[in-house]
Amino acid sequence: MYRNQYDSEIVTFSPTGRIHQVEYAMEAVKQGGSGVALKSNKFAVVVSLKRSSSELGSYQKKLFVVDDHIGILISGLTADARVLCNYMRNESANYKYVYESDIRVERLVTKVADKSQVHTQRYGRRPYGVGLLVAGYDQLGAHIFQTCPSGNFYDYKAISIGSRSQSAKTYLEKNFEGFATCTLEQLILHGLRALRETIPNNDTGLNSKNVSIGVVGENYPFTLIEEEATLPYLNMLESDEPVEMQVN
Amino acid sequence: MYRNQYDSEIVTFSPTGRIHQVEYAMEAVKQGGSGVALKSNKFAVVVSLKRSSSELGSYQKKLFVVDDHIGILISGLTADARVLCNYMRNESANYKYVYESDIRVERLVTKVADKSQVHTQRYGRRPYGVGLLVAGYDQLGAHIFQTCPSGNFYDYKAISIGSRSQSAKTYLEKNFEGFATCTLEQLILHGLRALRETIPNNDTGLNSKNVSIGVVGENYPFTLIEEEATLPYLNMLESDEPVEMQVN
Amino acid sequence: MYRNQYDSEIVTFSPTGRIHQVEYAMEAVKQGGSGVALKSNKFAVVVSLKRSSSELGSYQKKLFVVDDHIGILISGLTADARVLCNYMRNESANYKYVYESDIRVERLVTKVADKSQVHTQRYGRRPYGVGLLVAGYDQLGAHIFQTCPSGNFYDYKAISIGSRSQSAKTYLEKNFEGFATCTLEQLILHGLRALRETIPNNDTGLNSKNVSIGVVGENYPFTLIEEEATLPYLNMLESDEPVEMQVN
Amino acid sequence: MYRNQYDSEIVTFSPTGRIHQVEYAMEAVKQGGSGVALKSNKFAVVVSLKRSSSELGSYQKKLFVVDDHIGILISGLTADARVLCNYMRNESANYKYVYESDIRVERLVTKVADKSQVHTQRYGRRPYGVGLLVAGYDQLGAHIFQTCPSGNFYDYKAISIGSRSQSAKTYLEKNFEGFATCTLEQLILHGLRALRETIPNNDTGLNSKNVSIGVVGENYPFTLIEEEATLPYLNMLESDEPVEMQVN
Amino acid sequence: MYRNQYDSEIVTFSPTGRIHQVEYAMEAVKQGGSGVALKSNKFAVVVSLKRSSSELGSYQKKLFVVDDHIGILISGLTADARVLCNYMRNESANYKYVYESDIRVERLVTKVADKSQVHTQRYGRRPYGVGLLVAGYDQLGAHIFQTCPSGNFYDYKAISIGSRSQSAKTYLEKNFEGFATCTLEQLILHGLRALRETIPNNDTGLNSKNVSIGVVGENYPFTLIEEEATLPYLNMLESDEPVEMQVN
Amino acid sequence: MYRNQYDSEIVTFSPTGRIHQVEYAMEAVKQGGSGVALKSNKFAVVVSLKRSSSELGSYQKKLFVVDDHIGILISGLTADARVLCNYMRNESANYKYVYESDIRVERLVTKVADKSQVHTQRYGRRPYGVGLLVAGYDQLGAHIFQTCPSGNFYDYKAISIGSRSQSAKTYLEKNFEGFATCTLEQLILHGLRALRETIPNNDTGLNSKNVSIGVVGENYPFTLIEEEATLPYLNMLESDEPVEMQVN
Amino acid sequence: MYRNQYDSEIVTFSPTGRIHQVEYAMEAVKQGGSGVALKSNKFAVVVSLKRSSSELGSYQKKLFVVDDHIGILISGLTADARVLCNYMRNESANYKYVYESDIRVERLVTKVADKSQVHTQRYGRRPYGVGLLVAGYDQLGAHIFQTCPSGNFYDYKAISIGSRSQSAKTYLEKNFEGFATCTLEQLILHGLRALRETIPNNDTGLNSKNVSIGVVGENYPFTLIEEEATLPYLNMLESDEPVEMQVN
Repeated sequence: MYRNQYDSEIVTFSPTGRIHQVEYAMEAVKQGGSGVALKSNKFAVVVSLKRSSSELGSYQKKLFVVDDHIGILISGLTADARVLCNYMRNESANYKYVYESDIRVERLVTKVADKSQVHTQRYGRRPYGVGLLVAGYDQLGAHIFQTCPSGNFYDYKAISIGSRSQSAKTYLEKNFEGFATCTLEQLILHGLRALRETIPNNDTGLNSKNVSIGVVGENYPFTLIEEEATLPYLNMLESDEPVEMQVN
Repeated sequence: MYRNQYDSEIVTFSPTGRIHQVEYAMEAVKQGGSGVALKSNKFAVVVSLKRSSSELGSYQKKLFVVDDHIGILISGLTADARVLCNYMRNESANYKYVYESDIRVERLVTKVADKSQVHTQRYGRRPYGVGLLVAGYDQLGAHIFQTCPSGNFYDYKAISIGSRSQSAKTYLEKNFEGFATCTLEQLILHGLRALRETIPNNDTGLNSKNVSIGVVGENYPFTLIEEEATLPYLNMLESDEPVEMQVN
Repeated sequence: MYRNQYDSEIVTFSPTGRIHQVEYAMEAVKQGGSGVALKSNKFAVVVSLKRSSSELGSYQKKLFVVDDHIGILISGLTADARVLCNYMRNESANYKYVYESDIRVERLVTKVADKSQVHTQRYGRRPYGVGLLVAGYDQLGAHIFQTCPSGNFYDYKAISIGSRSQSAKTYLEKNFEGFATCTLEQLILHGLRALRETIPNNDTGLNSKNVSIGVVGENYPFTLIEEEATLPYLNMLESDEPVEMQVN
Repeated sequence: MYRNQYDSEIVTFSPTGRIHQVEYAMEAVKQGGSGVALKSNKFAVVVSLKRSSSELGSYQKKLFVVDDHIGILISGLTADARVLCNYMRNESANYKYVYESDIRVERLVTKVADKSQVHTQRYGRRPYGVGLLVAGYDQLGAHIFQTCPSGNFYDYKAISIGSRSQSAKTYLEKNFEGFATCTLEQLILHGLRALRETIPNNDTGLNSKNVSIGVVGENYPFTLIEEEATLPYLNMLESDEPVEMQVN
Repeated sequence: MYRNQYDSEIVTFSPTGRIHQVEYAMEAVKQGGSGVALKSNKFAVVVSLKRSSSELGSYQKKLFVVDDHIGILISGLTADARVLCNYMRNESANYKYVYESDIRVERLVTKVADKSQVHTQRYGRRPYGVGLLVAGYDQLGAHIFQTCPSGNFYDYKAISIGSRSQSAKTYLEKNFEGFATCTLEQLILHGLRALRETIPNNDTGLNSKNVSIGVVGENYPFTLIEEEATLPYLNMLESDEPVEMQVN
Repeated sequence: MYRNQYDSEIVTFSPTGRIHQVEYAMEAVKQGGSGVALKSNKFAVVVSLKRSSSELGSYQKKLFVVDDHIGILISGLTADARVLCNYMRNESANYKYVYESDIRVERLVTKVADKSQVHTQRYGRRPYGVGLLVAGYDQLGAHIFQTCPSGNFYDYKAISIGSRSQSAKTYLEKNFEGFATCTLEQLILHGLRALRETIPNNDTGLNSKNVSIGVVGENYPFTLIEEEATLPYLNMLESDEPVEMQVN
Repeated sequence: MYRNQYDSEIVTFSPTGRIHQVEYAMEAVKQGGSGVALKSNKFAVVVSLKRSSSELGSYQKKLFVVDDHIGILISGLTADARVLCNYMRNESANYKYVYESDIRVERLVTKVADKSQVHTQRYGRRPYGVGLLVAGYDQLGAHIFQTCPSGNFYDYKAISIGSRSQSAKTYLEKNFEGFATCTLEQLILHGLRALRETIPNNDTGLNSKNVSIGVVGENYPFTLIEEEATLPYLNMLESDEPVEMQVN
């Protein structure tokens, strides 16, 4: 990476109109743990690959419940993500208290993005070093959003985030056209297959320790499927090589 | 790009009286998505070319409704644009509440420009990295304004913004003299033709996915024409090669 | 321009007692659009040469009404000028409200200058990058003042500002002795002749699009003469080559 | 260590998305005194190796009681640790006052982590240069958490911290599978054996002066075992060479 | 002027105990317009040489009335001087309002000096770039004070300030012993003669346009003598070559 | 000392996790005047070697009474020490007022340390450049504490501070085992002997001018022994060469 | 003077524990005008050598009355001294108002020193560039104190300050033993003799213009002896060459 006089302050534009500190914060997201989010007409699913620093410690959680109808998957600086997650929980609870209904997913995502934007324009702070995949369900249906340190957010049918996410994205691009009408089970399996693509060959692969699944949908509050509860899906995954072949 | 000791602080003039950080922020506008705005006596139209990072995601919205009589097209940093759009919506609503009438378009544009100017004069902030094309209609008729990171704004009959906007501008300069008396349909078609000029040759061109049209006019609240609703205009566009030839 | 360690902070004196950032801000004024102001015993007149970025846009206004008895011509950063113009309007209106009479021109100019001075003495701001020619009429007669980014202001019989203003100044110096007793028409023509000197030879010259005239005087509220209304004066100007010769 | 232009400000991301100042603060933790924490189903135990600057002074305390059900072991800057310890005591007491029950261990750890995160995102402060091993017992059982200057925290079955902690970690990794069902005595002995691994060969080893033990568990408020009280365990340790052999 | 690492911040002492930024501000005073102040037992007189940027503009005022018993002559940055002059007027008026008597001259000068001192000790401001000659009369008699950017002030029998002031000072030093018992007319003439010494040989000399005289004394409120009113003194000056000779 | 890019800001960690500015502040302590503190079961004693800049001035006090049961010896920047001493006096008095009992020595020392820690973590301040030896007596017995600029504090049986303190420390290490049961007189003599070790050979040695002794103990409020009152101890010291020999 | 990276910020310690900016401020004191202070059992005397920039101006005052029982002599930046003098006057008056007795001299000196210390520890200010000799009399007798930019203060029997003060100090060291029982006249003469030592050989020596004497003592409010009133002492001084010889 070349030497650059415009890349150490968040309030400085480069001569080509870029804000390098925001871009560097996005690098922190790219090197976070990998995760996949996808949706059908009725469900939004997030699956994450958890990491552990050693076998002595538990795996680091990457999925968090925000409210009954919203959950998030984080990639990047965990401590920053916690700040944003707390913010989302508060905003969602406040909205429910004031309006006696659930906050719409995009509205909550916009609030997170606005909060992030502030950190890109004032001296003396740094951008949040975290990206979120937000899965939610509201009167407009199932949603998958990605938020960025820049204050941007994107609406996706399916997306992956974190290290080696390109491989998962390739899987998703090949298969996403069928997601809309998938059953929940099929949707979860697609998510796991995409996630599996992000694992280097010499790794042990997906297992009940390192996989977490989050599901939200119509009359289906955001639910975490973890540990043994993931085994039925992982077992189906093991036997599906032919299925994936068929897809390819 | 040459080394410059006056270009990293918004509060610093260069020896030739320039504020480089403002100019760099304008670069962010130039590299945003392309858009075109034009007006007749009765209508103001904005057309934008939306981008998508991949086929998994939806196209990024570039047109936003501010109020019944005003809409904007953005180019540059989306998160910054969101801040300004929210500001415009609040100011417009407040005005309506206090004066029981619609805010005049130029007055609202001036407020945005004043807000932008503040970011060019105090240490510790950066200019907004976004330009807006504002289309509106008020008792003075149809309006097209462009706002800049510098706090300047310009009144146009027709204008384009963003990457490759020079090509669209050339089209507009050849044709703008007839815009005043155009029908709405003709005006939209002129806008789409100008926008088409901003597309590199090897691209797929305009289609119902990547084109958004915003219209506002006399007794015609600001309306977004998107997706399938754009097809009638796109179809007319396809059959109009001869027309454009005639123009040239 | 030589390398200088004292020229990047507004709070730093050079070893020779200069504040370079103030001087650089004055450069922004010199490169603004050109304008001319002059006065007789009864009238003060400002004439400006407007610029347009392209034929698609309207010409940028350079004359602004502050109050019935005061108007300004700006040169430099337009957004900064807007801030100062708003300030003058507020101060003038407040004065009228409190004292039930018009604010004296010099008093208002002093307020602008004091506001500008603050920006030359505290860290974290930059000077205003704009100069104003203020034309006004009060119980002391007609006035022309120039304000500067430094917080200085000057009282003139006639003056020009902006790019190529030296040529206009030369015309004014040759002719100013007769201004005091001119008719309004003659005064305007002198202003236009001086303004014409600032136009490079290969330009189209003055026309009803690029010229604005502001007049204020005894029982004559500040009035803008623009577009077609300028034609009588421009026509007289075309036929006055001999007059100018006679003057030279 | 190489020269780096991104490592002197807490608000600066490096081009690879790292915040070097946070990483440097973690170095302060690595060079602190060594400690070990481990848990069974019913107990959490922390053991620390105290240092003394000379025989004239008492050994520096590294274990602190936070509340009846929580204690901490510190590694890094002692003065920073005191700030965090006071904060934990206050939060725990406030919680008890408001809710009339003990704060859950993870909740308190999260508060410390959130407080630490703030110091990684705003200009003008530095991260806390201390890591904590938190041992606690609540309705969810025994807990061992580690907090970091980054605002991250980790849930462990067993862990070591500070200088030469890798040797202790190796011992823990070989033996941790049996910890869950250990008696308290066995658990303490495992902790001491792991701690012994962090002592350079030419040192005097563990003794009642330099060892502190903290225990918390079901119906067992956090208790410090120090000075003579440690002798029974140290004596058992001396005679256990074969045991450790057996383990290896 | 040599390169210096201690001269860009007002809060930095050089290794020899100097504050260079204060000294540089004093340079701004030295390069201001020249002025002379002197006093007899009953009168204090200030005379100034006004400058004009061109014949189109009026001469810049350098003498200002502060109150009936005090006036000032400024040298240096005019906008800074205006700030201090306003401050003096306010303080003098407030004193009169509270104590129902005139403020003593030295007391007011001390206030100005204290205000200036603040600007030499806190980061983020710059010293005032102006020196004042204060002429006043109170129950202690006639006074001439000079204030400096450093916050120092000096009590003089006679003094000159601004560019080429050394020549005037030489005249004053030769003649000051007779000032105490001068008539007012003689005192003014001494002032004009001293001022004349500051004019380069090829200049036009003193005239009613470029000279201003301020007088204050016993039962003689501070009065400006300008324009035609200066002619009697200037005429006497023209005929006094022999007198000056005699003095030398 | 090598050139270092991490050592000029208190908020900057070095890549090895050190805060150099804190370490530099500790240098100021090392170069302060030397002092010794030691305790028996019933008494805590501090002895200091006072310095005088010349025979014209009195010796600088280094011992200060904080409260009846606490006194301090300072080494380093005297002005900083005064700030901390005032703080201790206030805290001790407040405690007595609120709780109607004496503050425990360690509690007061912790308050000083916490105050010092704040100065190591926020931009724009510097650490206190002073170390304190605190001698006190409370219900837990006699205490000697040392506080540091880092916010650390240490509990000692005996300790020395300031320049050449290593020699005194060597004496203390050889003899401290007998201190616990010393009489007060013996304890003072041990302190003086240790202090004598810090004096260069060519100096005049201890005398009633340069020695101060502070004593606190059971039913013995903190008392300063100065000037002539020190003579009995100094006389005993002169005759004790054999005693010291015996010890060695 | 060597190049130093630690000497431009008041909040920065050098690697050897020094705060260079404080030391540089002390240089300003050394280069101030010279003064001498000395005391007997009943009186404290300060004598100062005043400077004048030219014969046109009065001599700069260096002695100031603080209260009936306290006066000061300043050396260094006069404007800074004025700030401290005002502070002392206010504190002394407030004390008298609250306690209905005179503030003790050392207490007031401590307040000045504490105020000075603040300027050595916070970013964005500079130390006071002035040293004070404080002469006072209270129930403890006569006092001479010196305050420094560092926030230190010293108690002296006799001392000199400012340029060439070493020569005066040499005189004082030779003679101070007899001061305690001097008559006031003798004490003043000793002060003048010491002051005379600070004058370069080619100067005119002490005279009634450049000498000021301040006296305070038992039933003797602080009194300034200036101008003609100094002549009796100066006359005695002229005839005392033998006396000084006798002393040597």
